[in-house]
Amino acid sequence: MTGTSLDGIDIAICKFNSFQNKYNFELIWQGHFCFSNQLRSLLLDIISNKSTDLKTLSQLNIAYTNEIANAIEQAKIKSGISNIEAVGFHGQTLWHNPQKEAFCGQSVASTFQLGSGTHLSTVLNTKVVYDFRTSDIALGGQGAPLVPFFDYHFLKSDNENVIALNIGGISNITFLPKNCSADAVIAFDCGPGNCLIDICAQKLFGVDFDENGALASQGEIVPEIFDELITINFIRQKPPKSTGKELFNVSLTQKFFGKYSKYDIIRTVAEFTVYAIVENIRLYANPVDKIVVSGGGAKNSYILSALRKQIESSEIVIIDELGIPSGAKEAIAFAFLAYCKLLGIATNLPSVTGASKSISLGVVAGY
Amino acid sequence: MTGTSLDGIDIAICKFNSFQNKYNFELIWQGHFCFSNQLRSLLLDIISNKSTDLKTLSQLNIAYTNEIANAIEQAKIKSGISNIEAVGFHGQTLWHNPQKEAFCGQSVASTFQLGSGTHLSTVLNTKVVYDFRTSDIALGGQGAPLVPFFDYHFLKSDNENVIALNIGGISNITFLPKNCSADAVIAFDCGPGNCLIDICAQKLFGVDFDENGALASQGEIVPEIFDELITINFIRQKPPKSTGKELFNVSLTQKFFGKYSKYDIIRTVAEFTVYAIVENIRLYANPVDKIVVSGGGAKNSYILSALRKQIESSEIVIIDELGIPSGAKEAIAFAFLAYCKLLGIATNLPSVTGASKSISLGVVAGY
Repeated sequence: MTGTSLDGIDIAICKFNSFQNKYNFELIWQGHFCFSNQLRSLLLDIISNKSTDLKTLSQLNIAYTNEIANAIEQAKIKSGISNIEAVGFHGQTLWHNPQKEAFCGQSVASTFQLGSGTHLSTVLNTKVVYDFRTSDIALGGQGAPLVPFFDYHFLKSDNENVIALNIGGISNITFLPKNCSADAVIAFDCGPGNCLIDICAQKLFGVDFDENGALASQGEIVPEIFDELITINFIRQKPPKSTGKELFNVSLTQKFFGKYSKYDIIRTVAEFTVYAIVENIRLYANPVDKIVVSGGGAKNSYILSALRKQIESSEIVIIDELGIPSGAKEAIAFAFLAYCKLLGIATNLPSVTGASKSISLGVVAGY
Repeated sequence: MTGTSLDGIDIAICKFNSFQNKYNFELIWQGHFCFSNQLRSLLLDIISNKSTDLKTLSQLNIAYTNEIANAIEQAKIKSGISNIEAVGFHGQTLWHNPQKEAFCGQSVASTFQLGSGTHLSTVLNTKVVYDFRTSDIALGGQGAPLVPFFDYHFLKSDNENVIALNIGGISNITFLPKNCSADAVIAFDCGPGNCLIDICAQKLFGVDFDENGALASQGEIVPEIFDELITINFIRQKPPKSTGKELFNVSLTQKFFGKYSKYDIIRTVAEFTVYAIVENIRLYANPVDKIVVSGGGAKNSYILSALRKQIESSEIVIIDELGIPSGAKEAIAFAFLAYCKLLGIATNLPSVTGASKSISLGVVAGY
């Protein structure tokens, strides 16, 4: 898994079993690998410029995939696991717009993932399952979120309403009413996860991210900024909905740079991030008994304590407490999607993505 | 099949059988479909500008694939064949550079095909085999040419040395010594096919192509242009070799526009096109008894008569005379590659592409 925050490659080596529609998994090994500086800055450039030349794109497609391949080879060595049956490979999202738009005389929704499953499969000599989002969008869905299928099978409770809250670059929620069926799962992106905070940390403080919210805690909320950010339509838009850096990028906040204290700006952006989560839970995912937090944001004690303050009625736990390392959750989920693809099991949740039917997501290279 | 000349979509509906490593096919229906003007001009723009923004690329990936899907649906109606088992989908080459170059701290060769096999498979509800070139390049090959596998199985002769000469945007040769084994096949791109002639027809005369060489026949060869073009290293470079619009594009000829008669320019470019073919046969594919010509260039009587004049010792036939419509040959070949992929049969010829081993090319979406 490589997410929109471009912080690198998360790898989880898992063993799955299934019996009569019940699944279980064992996490054998997990770890994080950094992109090379060259690759990371090129990815950042292209994603922020939103354009590239064809030669760079073609080469980047392979260079990015090679770094994934190297990380997997290292993971195999570090874990001592050499017999990998298949790799679930998300790819790096370069564009994601599931809303249909007029284009070339058609009405087109699209998603675009960098990375070649065919190349990865060939260099690893292993099956690779990839391109998980395209077919859901072709069926009228959002192509996201896809992790709720994992949440449904592994976090649902018989006697509690559970929310799985992932705070990656973007924040998203899976709402699992107690003992619900698959078509009762509600899930959607809330708004920014770490992405806006990271941008402020990088542009205003020259650090990669705001560790434990140490920077945000030194500032005050600026009402002018906060009040403007919360008017973004996406926040209160009814699910199904999904978003990305097309909406939540530097252009939202840079106009405030220099006008206010940088501590106040990052505090306000952090507060807006929490607001987007809390507001979406209030509007679309309640009542909730337990919130299971994952993603990089689960490590940010500022965000966690703000959430605990604002949602007093629910238990808030970090997914690590359930035996799933928060940084590895999405990687585990895509390993699970890959496992299901090999069995031909449908993995999108039409109630979540809005697709017209369920389908086994992904393509298998190398069989 | 949609080739580099961007003249549209070639569809062939075929039935294949195999028995003990012998294959046969029946061409059930074939036809050509034009791109919409909007799509074609956008593709031309992007390929000539060699760059794009990510949003356009992501949308174009789907819009292009939708036009392929529509063409296939029309082909099914026109042919009366509704039970298509699988589609072989080449995609539109946006970049192809199998030579390794330093990139991002790595040494990278790459090819990039527009078009989503996953999307096509989902909207057609049919298996789609696509991304045929990537794994060969990952194995150190050129990722091209791939049609020689078809030539080997369907054009090889027990008692004649045969050349299959395809004149599409680029011209390429498959040399099949009599009764040869697969690893004795020689095949490579010669140089420009119709691409430079088409550019001159479009830029100098405002027509899509030079029908039957009517324009070229009115001009004279300009030695200054001809002598410069034939010095291009690629022409005499030793196989394996492959090329594309990265080398043979408008920049080669536009500096001559206005300086010489437009008829003389197109004549010279046509003569250079023939020269590149003849020179490659002379250097790397002889002696030859029979040349089987296919592709759009097979319809250009000017090119054919120039070839016949310069290669007097060989019989030159158009592939149509063998029951294979020249415009459909590549489409049939990719249908054959798709058929072989479904059976897991290796389809690259390492002697041709330079790959380190043989592999079953392509990825299957939708199974």
